[in-house]
Amino acid sequence: MDKILIFGHRNPDSDSICSSIVYNNLKRAQGMDTEAVALGEVNDETRYALNYFGLDAPRVIDGVKEGQPVILVDHNERQQSAPGIEKAKIKEVIDHHKVANFETSSPLYFRAEPLGCTSTIMKKIYDEQEVDINKKMAGMMLSAIISDSLLFKSPTCTLQDKLAAEELAAIAGVNLEEYGIAMLKAGANTKDKSIKELIGLDAKEFDINNKKLVIAQINTVDTKEVTERVEELEKTISTDIKERNLDAFVFVITNILTSNSEVLVMGEDKDKVAKAFSKTLINNFMTLEGVVSRKKQIVPPITEEFNK
Amino acid sequence: MDKILIFGHRNPDSDSICSSIVYNNLKRAQGMDTEAVALGEVNDETRYALNYFGLDAPRVIDGVKEGQPVILVDHNERQQSAPGIEKAKIKEVIDHHKVANFETSSPLYFRAEPLGCTSTIMKKIYDEQEVDINKKMAGMMLSAIISDSLLFKSPTCTLQDKLAAEELAAIAGVNLEEYGIAMLKAGANTKDKSIKELIGLDAKEFDINNKKLVIAQINTVDTKEVTERVEELEKTISTDIKERNLDAFVFVITNILTSNSEVLVMGEDKDKVAKAFSKTLINNFMTLEGVVSRKKQIVPPITEEFNK
Repeated sequence: MDKILIFGHRNPDSDSICSSIVYNNLKRAQGMDTEAVALGEVNDETRYALNYFGLDAPRVIDGVKEGQPVILVDHNERQQSAPGIEKAKIKEVIDHHKVANFETSSPLYFRAEPLGCTSTIMKKIYDEQEVDINKKMAGMMLSAIISDSLLFKSPTCTLQDKLAAEELAAIAGVNLEEYGIAMLKAGANTKDKSIKELIGLDAKEFDINNKKLVIAQINTVDTKEVTERVEELEKTISTDIKERNLDAFVFVITNILTSNSEVLVMGEDKDKVAKAFSKTLINNFMTLEGVVSRKKQIVPPITEEFNK
Repeated sequence: MDKILIFGHRNPDSDSICSSIVYNNLKRAQGMDTEAVALGEVNDETRYALNYFGLDAPRVIDGVKEGQPVILVDHNERQQSAPGIEKAKIKEVIDHHKVANFETSSPLYFRAEPLGCTSTIMKKIYDEQEVDINKKMAGMMLSAIISDSLLFKSPTCTLQDKLAAEELAAIAGVNLEEYGIAMLKAGANTKDKSIKELIGLDAKEFDINNKKLVIAQINTVDTKEVTERVEELEKTISTDIKERNLDAFVFVITNILTSNSEVLVMGEDKDKVAKAFSKTLINNFMTLEGVVSRKKQIVPPITEEFNK
């Protein structure tokens, strides 16, 4: 059989990269021929984690060929996956997102749990299958949980995530709080990045009721660093909307210290997006207080509004 | 919170009914407010199992209301689920089929495994969560496994199904072989049934590449009992095709003793269905030797052919 490729979503975040690495490690420990790959370069936050634990970033692939056996982690929706995924052979899915735009022609192993992070599920699988967790793998899972939960501040974070992180920090030999802040800050550097980079860093495309939306998010320690570049932002997003034929582009700028988000919304359906939060846009912006989670606080109200 | 309804697919088979009953038993043992219900009357085979173990058939519902919390077992596709499912709140899915036409707006607990029977997954969940399996529940899970695996003859049957069944037979206090044959025979009685009943007994609707197909299956101990009623069969299926605007109706008549199937195919796309098996229809019929599993031997080739 062909080598099985394991990968997370496009514009990979720490959970996508780390979960691919740790699941690959588990499968290989069980004698399977697998490889962790990625659908894009790692971001600064993930690079910090990889460097810290002395691991290489996975090889980047730009698509999968027909019949390629694959395991998807941290995503299931087709448009977030590798080009060519429709013709690939999906063997497994391990995820913590809603299920949509996913279809197979045969039964498969599909495990989704409503937890804060795929790596928390990975930790459970290691425990269930009694595979030893070494220091590096503990570091990877820990980094993914810190990233997805914004160091436990996100409402997506469950008790299971918290407890897993504590156990993993002990194995990895790091101080949870110190390591976490350092890693998040490494990823929250927005100054050295172009606007094109910023809006693409963690952008996901959604098809909701025949509308095509992009919801992008970045973390900062100072939202003004980004919002003051408004002219360039609007120009770049406008071009993106035209080129990709989007109905709305939602750009969420999250302050990881205050847990508030400034949201820039553009496109034909921008007011519909604002309405989902009972807000009115002022110069295309709205403030969402206490909102840090795209998955739990942004996607569900938008989905509901667009399905009305 | 509202009571959570647990149910399997329309035209419920033994796995759908038994898995609902055993998962409800587990959830209630854990203090949750749940009820096992069904999307149709139980068939003769399931009734045999229920009577044998002294249990009542679940209440039949004809749909779910908006916001109703539900747990789906033994299915995930919308068109196989309760009317109104789009507006229900799907909390969990436990299934062993391919994933298709399924979508949620929030993360959920989704567990699918490529095993022969949902009840085998149920057995694993009982063991993992350390909930005691009593005689009645063992009987239900055992009956579901025997039914879905045709007493281990189906290619969908895995070693895990077989081992679970043996363990459950011991708890239920029955001779696996004797009980299995008696139960399957109870469900294979076709003489007393109208053609309309026969084609609806275990019929599932599939949307494949914008084509609407029904694939129905019945078990017999003598396929002639059914095929000799060909005129009435063709008349009834023709009407069904017109009324439901189907592109094809595939009626699989499986001999549970020989493991061969006679297949009647009608509708505009009937030749495409035959082509999926490299067959030509003779008077709308084809013989598929060694074919007993809709899921593993019938749906995948048809899906592939219709996606060409």
